[in-house]
Amino acid sequence: MVVGSLPEQTDLAIIGGGVGGYTAAIRAAELGLSVILVEKDRLGGHCLNYACIPSKTLLHIADMFYDIKNAGKFGINVGSISVDAKKMLQWRIDVSNKLESGVSFLCKSHEIEVVKGTATFTSSNSLRLSTGDTIEFKKAIIATGSEPTVLKGFEFGEDIFDYKRALMLDKVPASMLIIGGGYVGVEIATLYAKLGSKVTIAEKFDILFNFDKDASALIKKKLTELGVNIKAGVTPISKAGKTVKLSDGTNSTFDVIVVSVGLSPYTVDLGLNNTKVSLDPNGFIKVDDRLITTDPNVLAVGDVNGGPLLAHRAIRQGVVAAEVVAGLPSGYDNLVVPAAVFSDPEIAIAGSIEEKPGIKVTKFPLSALGIAIALDKTNGFVKVASDSKNIVKGIEIVGHSAATIISEAALAIEMGASLEDIADTIHVHPTFSESIEEVTEGGLDRGLHFFYGK
Amino acid sequence: MVVGSLPEQTDLAIIGGGVGGYTAAIRAAELGLSVILVEKDRLGGHCLNYACIPSKTLLHIADMFYDIKNAGKFGINVGSISVDAKKMLQWRIDVSNKLESGVSFLCKSHEIEVVKGTATFTSSNSLRLSTGDTIEFKKAIIATGSEPTVLKGFEFGEDIFDYKRALMLDKVPASMLIIGGGYVGVEIATLYAKLGSKVTIAEKFDILFNFDKDASALIKKKLTELGVNIKAGVTPISKAGKTVKLSDGTNSTFDVIVVSVGLSPYTVDLGLNNTKVSLDPNGFIKVDDRLITTDPNVLAVGDVNGGPLLAHRAIRQGVVAAEVVAGLPSGYDNLVVPAAVFSDPEIAIAGSIEEKPGIKVTKFPLSALGIAIALDKTNGFVKVASDSKNIVKGIEIVGHSAATIISEAALAIEMGASLEDIADTIHVHPTFSESIEEVTEGGLDRGLHFFYGK
Repeated sequence: MVVGSLPEQTDLAIIGGGVGGYTAAIRAAELGLSVILVEKDRLGGHCLNYACIPSKTLLHIADMFYDIKNAGKFGINVGSISVDAKKMLQWRIDVSNKLESGVSFLCKSHEIEVVKGTATFTSSNSLRLSTGDTIEFKKAIIATGSEPTVLKGFEFGEDIFDYKRALMLDKVPASMLIIGGGYVGVEIATLYAKLGSKVTIAEKFDILFNFDKDASALIKKKLTELGVNIKAGVTPISKAGKTVKLSDGTNSTFDVIVVSVGLSPYTVDLGLNNTKVSLDPNGFIKVDDRLITTDPNVLAVGDVNGGPLLAHRAIRQGVVAAEVVAGLPSGYDNLVVPAAVFSDPEIAIAGSIEEKPGIKVTKFPLSALGIAIALDKTNGFVKVASDSKNIVKGIEIVGHSAATIISEAALAIEMGASLEDIADTIHVHPTFSESIEEVTEGGLDRGLHFFYGK
Repeated sequence: MVVGSLPEQTDLAIIGGGVGGYTAAIRAAELGLSVILVEKDRLGGHCLNYACIPSKTLLHIADMFYDIKNAGKFGINVGSISVDAKKMLQWRIDVSNKLESGVSFLCKSHEIEVVKGTATFTSSNSLRLSTGDTIEFKKAIIATGSEPTVLKGFEFGEDIFDYKRALMLDKVPASMLIIGGGYVGVEIATLYAKLGSKVTIAEKFDILFNFDKDASALIKKKLTELGVNIKAGVTPISKAGKTVKLSDGTNSTFDVIVVSVGLSPYTVDLGLNNTKVSLDPNGFIKVDDRLITTDPNVLAVGDVNGGPLLAHRAIRQGVVAAEVVAGLPSGYDNLVVPAAVFSDPEIAIAGSIEEKPGIKVTKFPLSALGIAIALDKTNGFVKVASDSKNIVKGIEIVGHSAATIISEAALAIEMGASLEDIADTIHVHPTFSESIEEVTEGGLDRGLHFFYGK
């Protein structure tokens, strides 16, 4: 197609080829719709290329490095150990490249037209692309995701890194300042502290302050053991090159400075003023429970519409939005969006474990779990919240494999499971999943491997 | 109590302090019963002391050792690596000791009387102990478990090890012959092959022959890569010291010879002839669905009553039996007993994945899973079997963490979940649990990260 040619017609135009966008594209294609997917950078978006996958890849390597250094107790003796950061980076890049190729292959297989560029709405059924082409669509899905929030006075640039650049280093920095102790800051701190960096976190409130206190206290303790200097209630005042003055009066120089103070919806240059799409006060696109914006022709999925900004929420919404566009009676009605922090130990939560009237909260320590003792991974616990009818309202896991095993909890809550449903299900012995069975036994006053008292 | 004193009275006598017995004891004590638990060796039985826990502890160490040797691709460089088998053994023993102390503490906390010795029934409500004491009980639970099956001509002794001794070695043998390629043989082979032993398996049929062919083929391939010499269709003919003649005509000498040809119920010297308890043709104690034997005063749980001989089945039965004794309307009615092999990769199954009329089987390869690519753990797959109403009948996982994540599948089947229930539940990204979501998406013809065809 050349500039000035007739607009291309499509059933569905999707802006953004991240996990929300490409899953919507695939599902829509499966349902027989013609789909054009517009992506300005790389298929897979932040998750595959700059965030979830790279961080978990690097954390896995850092965990391994750390565990090897502490393997003597198991009888494994290692003469010397070092990390080749260039090779580590290459692995992490290769992984993203493989995954991007995979998404590209899936799009081809499903006959999805992928366009490289940006897109701007010119009306509620047309888009102009940066390639000069125009698209006329029946429906559009906005899946543009989010960007790291800019901190005034500490704008991203040569000396101030966002998480994307922090996950692209070709050497382990001797020192690192992380401004912001939310889950992104904590993951980056864990990663580099395990690889040997001297890490400082400056956090306005406290580490993981919006998490359960029992969980954040445990992570804080471990980070301190890893040599991380946690400055709670401390904000950055000013900077000069790589030297940062903090509100605690210190003025220090760091090899790498990372700002991770949140994520902001990405809506610039979308031409939303040419549509009926509207934003909430925080700049997120408003959607209903079918993910339709205030413009009936336009839907929005993932980070750009708010909620917990998590890849797996975007994936689910991508599927739902495609089904809505195809006329299926789908809606985004998930009861729980499990959340995880890949800290040491991991934190994962499904539902709410808040203590309140009518809710019983039971806690099982991993120090009572066979496999945790065997693998020296006893640092952690599981909590379950249940109502007066023993229905499970929430499960939190702090421990090894937490992010992986929380799925059982999410399914349980989605299905309205009771404590008995979980406790009476046989869990393979010995595994970390048994901790979920154990805590529900505890909730039923029939604790097995932990004595809850008489 | 001295010999000749009056019999001790108790609500419940339990013979065997393994996972079936001590869980029954704890649950019964919680329900207000007086309990005497008789154990001839160590609390925790085979599982904690000689089988599940030791094997998984050692396998974890062997996996770590193997992974370290292959960590160069991640940028982790290790100068030299060796295993100190004495220290490894000490860790494994310490773990068992800690767990045994834990069970002992639980028994004390629950005011369970633990007696060291053997017990013989003298009637349907009395036992004579090897200590000389006698017990009069209202109900008894037999939880004596199983013992390695003896192979004629290759009886356990100085030169022929059972799995217990194979998990007690203080050096890595240069060569090892394993007779029997079931899950026990495969786990021991994986363990020592990864630590550097030259392992040979002689198996009458084929490796894991009672497992899904796709699964066993994959394990066989990996064992071969690990240098294991698999002799399928081969039986041992005779032995002279540590030299074994096999049916393939070879006559070789091995440092260690292990026989793992199954497990047999342990019922000797129990005095069952003084009760109405009866055995099935294979020597297992017959029980009904409330775990009551043909003697109304006597129940039996775990390996000794047959079924899949798995610790987690015994744990569940222990709880149920105690509740039955206490008069609760409980029964052993679990739909699935998930089974796992801690091979490389792990195999785990809940329900049945057999292909038959009315059942659809869908397979998702781990090579399409983000986290598997990131961690270089793509060797494996997940299968789901569903009926015409999309109800999940079985899930098999072959891959990293399979034994851990199968719990979600077990809960799903127990709760009568459909493919949609699992596929529509949000699974944390990126984790291996997503593979369960992916395969159910596939079953619904809405594959996300794998193209199942048009």
